[in-house]
Amino acid sequence: MALREIEERGRPGNAAGNLAGASAAYVRDLIRRGEITGQTGGMALGQMQGNLAILPADLALDFARYCQRNPKPCPLVAISDTGNPMLPTLGIDIDIRSDVSSYNIYCDGELADTVHDISDLWRDDLVTFVLGCSFSFEDALLADGVPLRHLELGYQVPMYLSNIATTPAGPFSGPIVVSMRPMPMSEAIRAVEVTARFPMMHGTPVHIGDPAGIGITDILQPDWGDDVPVIREGDVPVFWACGVTPQAAVRAAKPPLCITHTPGSMLISDLPSSRLA
Amino acid sequence: MALREIEERGRPGNAAGNLAGASAAYVRDLIRRGEITGQTGGMALGQMQGNLAILPADLALDFARYCQRNPKPCPLVAISDTGNPMLPTLGIDIDIRSDVSSYNIYCDGELADTVHDISDLWRDDLVTFVLGCSFSFEDALLADGVPLRHLELGYQVPMYLSNIATTPAGPFSGPIVVSMRPMPMSEAIRAVEVTARFPMMHGTPVHIGDPAGIGITDILQPDWGDDVPVIREGDVPVFWACGVTPQAAVRAAKPPLCITHTPGSMLISDLPSSRLA
Repeated sequence: MALREIEERGRPGNAAGNLAGASAAYVRDLIRRGEITGQTGGMALGQMQGNLAILPADLALDFARYCQRNPKPCPLVAISDTGNPMLPTLGIDIDIRSDVSSYNIYCDGELADTVHDISDLWRDDLVTFVLGCSFSFEDALLADGVPLRHLELGYQVPMYLSNIATTPAGPFSGPIVVSMRPMPMSEAIRAVEVTARFPMMHGTPVHIGDPAGIGITDILQPDWGDDVPVIREGDVPVFWACGVTPQAAVRAAKPPLCITHTPGSMLISDLPSSRLA
Repeated sequence: MALREIEERGRPGNAAGNLAGASAAYVRDLIRRGEITGQTGGMALGQMQGNLAILPADLALDFARYCQRNPKPCPLVAISDTGNPMLPTLGIDIDIRSDVSSYNIYCDGELADTVHDISDLWRDDLVTFVLGCSFSFEDALLADGVPLRHLELGYQVPMYLSNIATTPAGPFSGPIVVSMRPMPMSEAIRAVEVTARFPMMHGTPVHIGDPAGIGITDILQPDWGDDVPVIREGDVPVFWACGVTPQAAVRAAKPPLCITHTPGSMLISDLPSSRLA
C-alpha cells in the first residue's frame, strides 16, 4: 500500500522511486537530459523544491511587490538577474531554461503550450521568480505524525478558489487559491504549530473548519485536483494558501509572456528545506 | 537610572516619554506636524518600526533583489507602488513624504542633506522600501530577561563593518554591517532562540565570539555608534546583521538620488511587531 500511496501522490512521478535519496544536482541532470519530464514530488527528499514564474522585466517589479505583499501564497525564495537564466543563490549550475521537467507557457494569460525545455523561448528581458512550495511542509507534518489523508487514501490534494483577496500589485490581483487537508481538530492545532516553522513554504493555514467561511460552496468539488476528496467523520478541513495563487494572478494580469512550471513539476534546489525554516 | 538609560538609548528621543503607550497613528501625526524631529525608539511600543530606503524606479528591481538575497540585514516588509507616497500595507494614511521624523538625502552615494519632510523632493518615479529594524527584537530579548548592556550602561549600540559579504544585486553590494551586544554565552544561546522568532527583524545572530572571525580587528573601535562599548568579564560579543547594511550598499551603488531615514528615526507602522514574528 505504501507504494500505491506514493504513486497516487505523483511521487516519484515518471522516474524510479530510488531518486528519493538522490542529490538535487543528480535529479536536475536527469531533467536537463530529458529523462524526467513530469512530477518531482518525492525526489531528492529534504531539498527545497520551488514554484516557478518567469516574466518580462517590465512586469518584474510589480510581481516582486505582489509576492512581498502576499507572503503566504507567494513566498519569494529567489529572483534572478534580468536576462540571466542561472540561479546561483539556489544551487550550483541551475539553468532555468532546462532544469525544470515541465513548463507551462502562458501568452496573454492563456495557457498556450506545455514544454520540457525553454531554451528557444529565452530572452534577455526575462526575470525568474522561484516561490516556496508545500512539499516541504508536508514532509514536516508527516514526520510529526500529523495525518495527511490524500497520501493515506491516494487522491490529489484538492485546491479551491477562496473569497480571500490577495493584496494587488500593478496588474497582479485575484483570490487566494487554497489547498485542503482534512484532519481531526487536535491535529489541525498541531499542524499550525508545525507549519509555523515554514513561513517560506506557505506557513500556517489560512482557515480551519467551515468551507463557507472562505467562500467555498462545495468542498467535494475542488477547482483543481482531479479527485473527490474524502472527509472522514471527525475530520475538519484545514486550508493552506497554495502555490497556484500566483498562476491565477498571472492569468488575471495577462502578460504577453509568462512561463511557469507545470503543477507538480518543481524546480529542485540545492538548499535543504530546513534551511528555509 | 531607568530614565537615564532610556535617554541614553535615544528613547524617547526629543519628545515626551509618555509616547511609549501612544498609538502609532498619534505619533505619526506629531511627526507629520513637525513636533517630533528625532529618535523614535521607545515610542508606540509594540508597533513595528522600520528602516527606510527610497529609490528611483529604475533601481527598484535590483534593490528588491538585493533585499531578497540578503534577508538578515535587509528584511523586506513593504514596497510601495511607483510614485505613490502612501504605504497602505503598513497602516492607515501613512504618507512617506512627511511621516518619518528625519530623512537622510543621498546624491550619488554621498550624504547631501538631512531634512524633516521630503514633499518637495517627491517624484513620480520613486519607490519606497521599508525594512525591519532591531527595536522589536530588543524588546523581545528584554522581556525574556536577556541582558542588553548598552541599555544597562547607557551607551549606543556599536556597529562594525564585517568581512561577511552580502550577495550582490545589480549595483548593490558590500559587507554586512553588524551590531554587537555582549552577554554571557548561556544568554547568547537563549538570544538565538528568542530572535529566531523574528526573521523580519534581522533574526538570529550572524556570529558569536571572536570578533576577528568576521574581520573586526578592534572591538573597542566601532565604525558607527559614538561610544566605546563595555565588554565585561564573562561576556562574549554577539553580532547581529544591522539595518545600516542597506545604507552602505546604497553608498556603494551611488544612485543619483536615495532617501533614507536618519538612523534611529524610524517609520512607525500600524503593524504589531509580533505580527511579523
